[in-house]
Amino acid sequence: MPLFLDIHRHIPGLTKDAVEGAHQRDLATQSKHDAKFLNYWFNDRTGDVFCLVEAPSKEAAVRVHQEAHGLVADEVVEVREGE
Amino acid sequence: MPLFLDIHRHIPGLTKDAVEGAHQRDLATQSKHDAKFLNYWFNDRTGDVFCLVEAPSKEAAVRVHQEAHGLVADEVVEVREGE
Repeated sequence: MPLFLDIHRHIPGLTKDAVEGAHQRDLATQSKHDAKFLNYWFNDRTGDVFCLVEAPSKEAAVRVHQEAHGLVADEVVEVREGE
Repeated sequence: MPLFLDIHRHIPGLTKDAVEGAHQRDLATQSKHDAKFLNYWFNDRTGDVFCLVEAPSKEAAVRVHQEAHGLVADEVVEVREGE
């Protein structure tokens, strides 16, 4: 399954609770799009969030965010994990 | 220990072997700076690399790359991992 890092930059007013809540909504939505959100990293001062997600396509990964909470990433980069 | 995601964008001519070699040099260098490179993700078409690293400071994380192979990240973002 392809792997993507989605990059959200400078979300205004981002909090730890907000990003946790959004992630929970991703987890509740992902199976509709055959996606699996594996992990995320964030900075609540800069408003940056990085989500690692397996999905059949970039579009499928984007749709999970769209449906779950509407906070679509600024960029989605297909990646391979280092060995 | 603080956690950082370092972001390298559009490295010309990036290959899987090159990024693996650079990562091995990071691993060989990191202890001098009390850093620990945990994982990385890359795209050899776009030339993007994302390294997840524990380090005492952003500067320490940068110095590992400087000494190991000279490919300093475009940006280093302090992050917390999602729970």
